[in-house]
Parts: sequence; C-alpha cells; structure tokens
Amino acid sequence: MDNISQPSLLLNEQICQNNINKMAKKARRHKVAFRPHMKTHQSARVGKWLRNAGVESITVSSVAMARYFAKHGWQDITIAFPCNIKEVDQINSLATAISLTLLVNNQQTARILQEELQAGVKVYIEIDTGANRTGLKVNDIQSITNLVRLLDQSTKLQWIGFYSHPGHSYAARSTKEILNVHGEVLRQVNVLRKQLSTTFGEFEVCVGDTPCCSAADTFEGINAISPGNFIFYDIMQHRIGSCRINDIATALVCPVVDIFPVRNEVAIYGGAIHFSKESFQEDTFTHFGLPVKQQETGWEVIDSSYVKALSQEHGLISCSPDLMKNIQVGDTLPILPVHSCLTANLMGEYTLLNGEKITQL
Amino acid sequence: MDNISQPSLLLNEQICQNNINKMAKKARRHKVAFRPHMKTHQSARVGKWLRNAGVESITVSSVAMARYFAKHGWQDITIAFPCNIKEVDQINSLATAISLTLLVNNQQTARILQEELQAGVKVYIEIDTGANRTGLKVNDIQSITNLVRLLDQSTKLQWIGFYSHPGHSYAARSTKEILNVHGEVLRQVNVLRKQLSTTFGEFEVCVGDTPCCSAADTFEGINAISPGNFIFYDIMQHRIGSCRINDIATALVCPVVDIFPVRNEVAIYGGAIHFSKESFQEDTFTHFGLPVKQQETGWEVIDSSYVKALSQEHGLISCSPDLMKNIQVGDTLPILPVHSCLTANLMGEYTLLNGEKITQL
Repeated sequence: MDNISQPSLLLNEQICQNNINKMAKKARRHKVAFRPHMKTHQSARVGKWLRNAGVESITVSSVAMARYFAKHGWQDITIAFPCNIKEVDQINSLATAISLTLLVNNQQTARILQEELQAGVKVYIEIDTGANRTGLKVNDIQSITNLVRLLDQSTKLQWIGFYSHPGHSYAARSTKEILNVHGEVLRQVNVLRKQLSTTFGEFEVCVGDTPCCSAADTFEGINAISPGNFIFYDIMQHRIGSCRINDIATALVCPVVDIFPVRNEVAIYGGAIHFSKESFQEDTFTHFGLPVKQQETGWEVIDSSYVKALSQEHGLISCSPDLMKNIQVGDTLPILPVHSCLTANLMGEYTLLNGEKITQL
Repeated sequence: MDNISQPSLLLNEQICQNNINKMAKKARRHKVAFRPHMKTHQSARVGKWLRNAGVESITVSSVAMARYFAKHGWQDITIAFPCNIKEVDQINSLATAISLTLLVNNQQTARILQEELQAGVKVYIEIDTGANRTGLKVNDIQSITNLVRLLDQSTKLQWIGFYSHPGHSYAARSTKEILNVHGEVLRQVNVLRKQLSTTFGEFEVCVGDTPCCSAADTFEGINAISPGNFIFYDIMQHRIGSCRINDIATALVCPVVDIFPVRNEVAIYGGAIHFSKESFQEDTFTHFGLPVKQQETGWEVIDSSYVKALSQEHGLISCSPDLMKNIQVGDTLPILPVHSCLTANLMGEYTLLNGEKITQL
C-alpha cells in the first residue's frame, strides 16, 4: 500500500474467489445454471476465475461487453439489456460467432430483428417482477402471450423463456426483507409458468439480482441465476443484508493530502471520478464509502469514520478522534465503496495484494 | 443523430466557443488573468480553442492531467489540488519541463517538497473562503503566516500567493445568491491582503468557481480566475443561476430501447456509467438530466420530462404525455446532464455536430 501514489482499486483475490465458489456451489446444490453477470468486474482475468469454478455461460449488460468477453473466449453470452436495435450491426457480428441470447421486450424490436439479423439468436422476454425498470409486467399475460406468439413465428429469434432482474430487492435492509422479495418473485414466476405452459410448453426462467441470489435458499421454478455484484459485494450489499463486511473484495486506496484537526476531517486524493457519486444513507448521516484497516482475512471498519463529501478529485473523510490522531499527510487509506460496480467501472483496473495490475474492458 | 447507436456526448462547438470568448473577454475587461480549469473537458482539442482565445496559462486538478496538457504544449500549469507528496516523482519530471504551480497547504508537504524536489516550482497556499473543503481558513492568519514564512525560507518553493475555490457558491439558486457569496469572498480576500501585505508585500490571488466567475462583474483584489465548468455549463449551473439553457454546450444522446405507455416512461441506453449519478433536486422531484429537442442555436427543454432513475447502463425517462405520444424504440434522445464535468469524464470523448469525434486525456 505504501507504493500507491494515486487512487487504486485493491482487489483481494482470495475473498473474490470465495464469493465465486460459494455462489457456484449454491447454484449446483439447487440445480440452477450459473450465468454470472460480468458488468461488475468487466475483466477477462476475473472471468478466468469464474471459468475455473465451472462457469460456461455468462451475462453482460452491453453489446460492447459481449464483444470483449467473446474476444476472450466466451461462447455463450446473454446481453441482459433491452435489445438496442441501433446496434444491429454489432449484434450480427456477435450472432455469427457465438451463442447469443438477447432480451426482446416489444413487438417492434422483434420485427426489426427478424428483418435485419443475419444469424439466429436465442431470446428471453424480460419480465418486470416489481422493480418497475424494464420488461413486461409479469402479470400482463396478454402482452406476454402476444409477444411469445410473434417470436414463435420468427425464423431467426428462438424464444427460450424469461429474464428478470428484481432490482427492488435493493430496498431491503435485512435478509428477511430480501427473502420477502424473493418469495414474491418465485410466486409470480410460478403463476406465469402455470398460465403459459399449457399453450407454450416448457421454458426457462433466469433471475439475476445479488441480494436474492445471496440470501435465498430455494429457487423453485427458476432455471438459472445471473448475479453480478456478488463477486465483489460492497457497503450497499452489506446494508441490504446480502454479505458480511469480510465478503467485500475491493477497496479504493487513497492518498491523504490535507488534514483539518479542528473539524476532525482529512482530504484524500479520491473523488467522484474514482468512487462514483453513489451514496448510502445511514440512520444519521449519508456517506460515499467507509474507511477500513486492512486485515489478513478482510477489513476492520473504522468506527465513526466515513467519506462525507466528494467532488471531482477530492474526497473528505469525517474521522473518529482515534483515526484523526493517527493519520497524516502521505498516508494511504483503504475505503470500502458504496457501489463496487460503479467504482470498478470508473477505475478501469485492479491492483492485487501482491501489486500486480489486472485490466478491464 | 440518427447514426448514433450508443450513448454519445454531443458537443456544440459554437456554444462552447461562445462560452470561452465571453469569459476571456470578461477577464480582459477586469484585468484579471484567465487560467481556465481543464478538468471539465480534459481535451487537447478544446484546449486549442482556449489558446485561440488568448489563454496561455491553465489549471488542472491532477498530476496526470498536468502531464497530458504539458505533452500538448502547455508551458504554464497550476495543479489546483492539495499537493499529493506520493506523486513527487511525476511532479519532478513536470517541474523540470514547464512552469509548474502547486498548492501547498501544510508545513509537512512544504518540508517534503523542499527535500525531494529537483527543480523550482511556484506555490499557492489554498485558502478556504467558506467551502469547508480544503485549504487553510482564510481568517486563520497565524497558520497562514507560519506557512508563508516557511515557504519563504525554501530554495525550491516560490510562494506567489493564494488560491481559493469558493465551492459554496454551488448552494446558490439565483444570480443574487451567487453575488452574495462572491461579495463575501472578495471581502475576505481583501482583509487578508491588508493583514499580510505590510509583512510580505504584494501577492497574487486566484479564484476559481464557475458560478462566481459567470455572475460577478467586479473582481477587486483578485488577480486571476480559473473557472472550469463554464466551458460546457449544465443543468446544475442553470439552476444555480450561472447560465441560460442555451449556454449548455453538451448533451448526452441516448437510444430509446423500451417503452412503457401505462406509466408514461421510456427506457434508454444511458445509465450511471454514462451520466454519473449526480442528481438535482427540483421543487417536487429529483432527476439525473433533462431531455431536450435540438434547435439550431441550442436546446428546447421538453416540459414535464426528466431522467427519473439510473442504474449501471439503464436510464428511465419520465415523459410528458406529448413526448410519450411521439417517441418510439430506436429513436435517439438528447439529454442535458446535471453535471457536465462528471459526464464528460465518464464518456471520454465528444461528438461534434458534424459527427467528428474529439478525444480526451
């Protein structure tokens, strides 16, 4: 850490490998396919760790990410984002090279793809199980049926089932609350199965949020899971109830550049272009990350200390009296991010504990 | 715009040039040096536009940015960030090549630089005029005097004066409120001048926030200005009272990928990794950007429509009934960002109106 001169995203490989192995094992135990989402890490090297754990199919959130992982040898990729028909050329070059699964959520997209695709693709219809983000409402049987019928007529789009990201699990603040969301998702999915299977036969359901996949221990009616954030976790996942502090695999290490004893604050080199501006509201304050001490097996959170404010390159840490006493200009401080996906995306690379750098997309 | 298939940051060069010329002219009129901050655009090409407007000295917020602009021919650069002594090697290679000005805010940094610098640099002491971010409190005469004395003994650090970023101007919501902040900054700076000039003689004061530099029409006691955001402006600057909507030079153009007529919303390809998660709280709602129609001389804001939510790649637009009626999957929608600096940093390049791409750092 003493060699770090600029904000650097430390990656504890052992914690990350543990997170991978735990989720892979859970998927095997429940006989669901494990198609991890690569958007969190965006790294071919971390992808290799997943492959070593038996992963063969992956999920991404953009065509660009699909191209990157295809280039690194992945042959079965789901783009879990409503298909962007403006990128049909790039989709075509992928569809001819690998087994590609798209999310098709409306008839217009289905028609344009049927017309412009040069190779077959598999298709999930995205269903909205309560997140109110994208996809067809899970109980809008009429629209879902109409779209399945249209896809069934297509010579290029092979409908295989449904995809859902129950992002409303992020509002949970305990494992119990996560399990309530998960239970309701399972209930909805199984109602949908019942309503459609007599007409359309068997189909797949893939579900992809980290809180539910981490906390749940039943996946009745689900065929595949595609969590992403679980690979690193972060403060938000800890507060949601998905992980322990020692399951968090990344910390942003920042140089201390200025000290303000009167207000118990220090300034770090580490701002919104490193952390992102994702914040977390605790009971009595809002923060952008929590400073920690590095331990052999993880992190020790420093009591009553937090990232209070971020501007483009500056971060301000509100310090406990104890931290304040022991910190000085030129120190480096590891900080657990609120949202590791956005921090990793901004940083573009990782530093392993041995100093080795790992690149991204 | 029809050729845009992925989120693209459109840059209206004419608006940008107008912003540059207006600020350059204002600086000349008030006989203050114009040392624009390059952190907003981070682009050598935009730097050329500044050079064409007579700019010779610039401001940056990191050593990396200083290296980039030095490589592109800039010979007089201020790093307006508390000097990070962990980067002394990179500072040394800059200091031997160009006229470099650093911010030194504490005795420890001054001592380490005196020991480790291989070439002379100029030094501002950063003063805190109310932002409570970094620097010495403007009325902490004792600490300021002690630091000036220490710098005066240095053989490598040439103290030239004070730098301040009155970031508390961002809390303003009208030109009048900006001018209140600016008036108080001027008062504080001139008190400091009076208190120090008998002992230390003449010194420079450089002030660098876009709201004050845009709204103010007196700079009594100030020698240089270093605004950055003025070059693009954004929704936040508009709400603060710094600019008109038609002074905003950039818009993030996003493909529409999904449509939800029941809830008057559309999903776009454009999320937190494109916009950043900077939000703005209006009277009755919070948003991450405002969709507009592109006009010959700028933008027409689309009434009652805004970016309601962002996840990593997804954006959700809450649409007016009129926008909803006329939008479809495959359209591209230009959106004015809340904070153009963070959006530009994430996007990494600009697209001019003629389709030409401009790169960044």
